[in-house]
Amino acid sequence: MQELTVKVPPTKACEYKIEIGTDILGSVWPKIETAFEKSGKFVITDANVEMAGHLEKLLQGRKIPNFVISPAGEKSKNMSTIGVILEAMEKAYLGRDTVVVALGGGVVGDIAGFAAAVFKRGVAVIQIPTTTVAQADSAIGGKTGVDSTLSKNAFGVFWHPSAVYIDVATLKTLDDRQYRAGLVESVKHALIADEGYFEFLEGNLDAILQRRCEILEKVAYNNCRIKAQVVENDPTEKNQRRILNYGHTIGHAVESESGFELLHGEVVAIGIVAAGLIEIEMGIGDCGRLERVKKILTALGMPTAIPPKISKKNVMDSMRRDKKAINKWPRFVLIDRIGSVHRQEGQWAIELGQEVVEKALDKL
Amino acid sequence: MQELTVKVPPTKACEYKIEIGTDILGSVWPKIETAFEKSGKFVITDANVEMAGHLEKLLQGRKIPNFVISPAGEKSKNMSTIGVILEAMEKAYLGRDTVVVALGGGVVGDIAGFAAAVFKRGVAVIQIPTTTVAQADSAIGGKTGVDSTLSKNAFGVFWHPSAVYIDVATLKTLDDRQYRAGLVESVKHALIADEGYFEFLEGNLDAILQRRCEILEKVAYNNCRIKAQVVENDPTEKNQRRILNYGHTIGHAVESESGFELLHGEVVAIGIVAAGLIEIEMGIGDCGRLERVKKILTALGMPTAIPPKISKKNVMDSMRRDKKAINKWPRFVLIDRIGSVHRQEGQWAIELGQEVVEKALDKL
Repeated sequence: MQELTVKVPPTKACEYKIEIGTDILGSVWPKIETAFEKSGKFVITDANVEMAGHLEKLLQGRKIPNFVISPAGEKSKNMSTIGVILEAMEKAYLGRDTVVVALGGGVVGDIAGFAAAVFKRGVAVIQIPTTTVAQADSAIGGKTGVDSTLSKNAFGVFWHPSAVYIDVATLKTLDDRQYRAGLVESVKHALIADEGYFEFLEGNLDAILQRRCEILEKVAYNNCRIKAQVVENDPTEKNQRRILNYGHTIGHAVESESGFELLHGEVVAIGIVAAGLIEIEMGIGDCGRLERVKKILTALGMPTAIPPKISKKNVMDSMRRDKKAINKWPRFVLIDRIGSVHRQEGQWAIELGQEVVEKALDKL
Repeated sequence: MQELTVKVPPTKACEYKIEIGTDILGSVWPKIETAFEKSGKFVITDANVEMAGHLEKLLQGRKIPNFVISPAGEKSKNMSTIGVILEAMEKAYLGRDTVVVALGGGVVGDIAGFAAAVFKRGVAVIQIPTTTVAQADSAIGGKTGVDSTLSKNAFGVFWHPSAVYIDVATLKTLDDRQYRAGLVESVKHALIADEGYFEFLEGNLDAILQRRCEILEKVAYNNCRIKAQVVENDPTEKNQRRILNYGHTIGHAVESESGFELLHGEVVAIGIVAAGLIEIEMGIGDCGRLERVKKILTALGMPTAIPPKISKKNVMDSMRRDKKAINKWPRFVLIDRIGSVHRQEGQWAIELGQEVVEKALDKL
């Protein structure tokens, strides 16, 4: 028997820019043309974004091959959509120097990032997020993916964008429930990383809900700043990146038990309150802090308790099937004060007895 | 407008082992169990490999969830097979610590590597190649992918295996045409990298065609050694890795014009002869060397000329649509002697006028 060792060298570090502004969508394309002069371009968007006029605003009459995901939303987030998009890209005679432009919310960004990552073994992708949740969260950080019939984001890769353009004016066309739910990720960022940002959100809630662009730019900037820092430290979620899951572990379980009738932001709000109850249980939180958190979530129109028709026992069961579970029980991210994640032995997501979680759920 | 920069850190270097032996298939599973003790396992193979008894030999009665690609071969190498396999992995309750075991030829390895790369954003894959072409070429180097309706390997990613096990005894069940065609990659490796290895192949042709395992182990070792060296220097094919395309540029064009009736190795043989004619045209080759190359290819039962029913004009057209083309014309890898690639200004694949290629095709 003979043996050989193959060494795979490291990839190089790289970086990308995020530009944040108001009504910048109409001036983005010339920038893409300059940066990717000789590359083929392909735009991926969805039916809602097209109807809102954003595709037209981006392209300004330019004839660029594109794919409009229809129906918009989670229903289309599957492997079959990826297959259809990849074939459409082939039929547009695109090569290895292609740049994919993702214009839309989280679903569009996740699908387009995935398609770019696997087309000809990987081409560039530019993210232009148009929803609160995508601008705060999914457009940055390089996670891409689609759902299986059994679980969310089951298939995908890490694939970082080459650039991100955030036009907060695009948020004006978003329906109210989506708009508000997407803001929960901003609250989450403040809770895990920056008390000053939390105070900013508290102090500017009216302006945010009125969608005043100068304030929304600041919100976007703070979200990107916080998320970028976490992702830079741990791009493939070996440890620190887990803090972005604050409120998500119980949130995902509620989401799945609601049959996905609740929006992602709504269940994360419930999850954040549940985390607050666990923190009190553990002696690292207090009622005053929890009330402050509940107040901002309530002002956003978010639920702060598990709806009566969802069984808490089923939520516990669902947590045992969490995709990040180890030995059928997930780890939890908690904070010890606003802006500071509670760590145990260097771990940012910690082990917790099932009885502690059960107790917190009973109080929820 | 505000701007932020996100830094993406480099990935770490890594390495993997290739074990080469005779009748080792039956002892591979305990090694995988040791290396991946707590991981879920999933085997991907095809109907031919299962019928040849290799799956049974690998698993020895163990109940491991698996997927048998059917029909075997290029017809199944598409996105829809990837989707079905990924769902089967989900239904087997596999998580992020899964290891996928690919048992089979190039198609199985490419599909399994791709599925592993995108399952839960990437899980480990172990390659156990069972054909001459997979043992010499496709199981090493991390290229994965499937075909589009328009072109080969259009969609995929780079995803390196965690280990490769080569059992040359599995080659005994391979049909003669496939067996011989797969050996052309060995000739290619010798031509681009090692004259001593070329002499070894010339001197041991009978033993190789009789599938004598002690010689086949040496062939496998030399192929892996040469390919690993090239891949280590240039894992994502920015420059030097292109030398592995020796004979492939014209070969691929002939393959596509044959309607894929010729096997990959057969068209690469034609491409190698074409490269020899171009080398003579360019003054870096001679008839003696070309005759020597043709002799070994003929002994393997390979064609050394374009079949009369294929139009040379169409072959030229097809080259203009090569996926590696720049400005609609590919670059070419040539050798200046056996074992040494001809470089121009640091480039391993060089620019060549269409008339030079046309002249060579006329003589083919």
